[in-house]
Amino acid sequence: MKRIGLLGCGAIGTQIALAIDSGKIPAVLTHVYDNSKDAANILVLKLNTKPEIVENSHLLSSHPVDIVVEAASQDAVKDVGLSVLQNKRDLMIMSVGALLDESIYDILSDACSHFKKTIYLPSGAIAGLDGIKSIKHELESVSITTTKHPRSLKGAKFFETSQIDLDKINSSTVIFEGTAKEAVQLFPANINVAALLSLSGIGSEKTTVKIVADPNTDKNTHHIEAAGKFGKMTFTIENIPDANNPKTSRLAILSAIETLRKYCSDDIQIGT
Amino acid sequence: MKRIGLLGCGAIGTQIALAIDSGKIPAVLTHVYDNSKDAANILVLKLNTKPEIVENSHLLSSHPVDIVVEAASQDAVKDVGLSVLQNKRDLMIMSVGALLDESIYDILSDACSHFKKTIYLPSGAIAGLDGIKSIKHELESVSITTTKHPRSLKGAKFFETSQIDLDKINSSTVIFEGTAKEAVQLFPANINVAALLSLSGIGSEKTTVKIVADPNTDKNTHHIEAAGKFGKMTFTIENIPDANNPKTSRLAILSAIETLRKYCSDDIQIGT
Repeated sequence: MKRIGLLGCGAIGTQIALAIDSGKIPAVLTHVYDNSKDAANILVLKLNTKPEIVENSHLLSSHPVDIVVEAASQDAVKDVGLSVLQNKRDLMIMSVGALLDESIYDILSDACSHFKKTIYLPSGAIAGLDGIKSIKHELESVSITTTKHPRSLKGAKFFETSQIDLDKINSSTVIFEGTAKEAVQLFPANINVAALLSLSGIGSEKTTVKIVADPNTDKNTHHIEAAGKFGKMTFTIENIPDANNPKTSRLAILSAIETLRKYCSDDIQIGT
Repeated sequence: MKRIGLLGCGAIGTQIALAIDSGKIPAVLTHVYDNSKDAANILVLKLNTKPEIVENSHLLSSHPVDIVVEAASQDAVKDVGLSVLQNKRDLMIMSVGALLDESIYDILSDACSHFKKTIYLPSGAIAGLDGIKSIKHELESVSITTTKHPRSLKGAKFFETSQIDLDKINSSTVIFEGTAKEAVQLFPANINVAALLSLSGIGSEKTTVKIVADPNTDKNTHHIEAAGKFGKMTFTIENIPDANNPKTSRLAILSAIETLRKYCSDDIQIGT
């Protein structure tokens, strides 16, 4: 049975740990770490099979785990990503935005090849990446339109310089159109979705992003269009926010659990 | 570098072999087989790195390959699937319809677990299976509507007992609505798509299929809707038929190549 080390004991890390503990993921959670010792302790209390809490994030991969699961932050990816691979462990990354930094991407990609290890990125709050990556070399355009309630957009850096007052929006309104590269800087909450789509397809400078504020929705909706020689694909994903963590779509947690379940199982694996 | 054995040297097998030969898939094609010795010879002539033609399909997995790629027929899956796993090789299956036979599915799934090997099913002519499998346990409904030109539907078993005359259809017309289980018997050309969707989600008795004949289209379009507690997903894939084999969508070939490329690479793997 596979052995897992978990970096990050917040809302997503906790859901993953519970999925391992309940047997949904056929593996053993052997070691955990969080910058907050309290968060790590609270997580361990919830689990039947108690993992060991390590003293720093680098120690996770020094233990004989098969994979380290990052559910912490982009900084955590930058900090420990390479050492996980150097220690000959696989890595699953939730804070995918870290990979939009090309130097980080190249270092980790080269390390995978050099140490013969794999980094897994779940599809997150979107779907259809099986299709996008298959047609990567024939893609002519990729766009994503994200629609959220204005309150879900509050606090984004975009509003520091924009004239738009979210409180005054009373019908569906496009508030941003630009490249994925621009979008991830102005709307950090959208970063993982934009990063996944960019990395699967034609990169963050060619992928276009539209952000729509709609006071009449209670969902986070992502609409993706991709076109090229192969034909055309459109995907619409209407996500209900997770009950335990309204900032995260339930699908983002479920796709992480499925990615890890697949990694830990010898079985029939469906999908590219 | 991974070593590949190829079962089936028809249109799809040839495209996969060429992708290996050109380096798109970082692997070596070491052995091939086809029921037609001529087909195997013609394929080998096209390749720079010549694989050995084996005398029968069972011999593919007796050689030290890492994976056997089936691109032959459902019968081939039933015939050699188990022995590939028993010989401790992984298996990629293109004729996914074979797995709708529950006894075949169970035998191969158990063998994966027993021999610690994996069967890979590419997403075929559709996309979004990353999302569907993640929400598998929360799905309430899954449906697929396939729209094709009437000439692409000709010869289907459905028309043996139906009153519908394809030649007289002059506007978009629904010609079938039923379960995936019924659809795969009546429309064998649709079997892989219906099988992939059923296996990823809620099974062939609960997945519903609609077939539309549209004399005004030159594409094969699949529209998938999935709903449940997580929210809702809709995927529309408009496929241009492959130039070398109009019966196959280009996407089906590209998704097979991507699945194999991923299998053969130590790298960053995007998508659930």
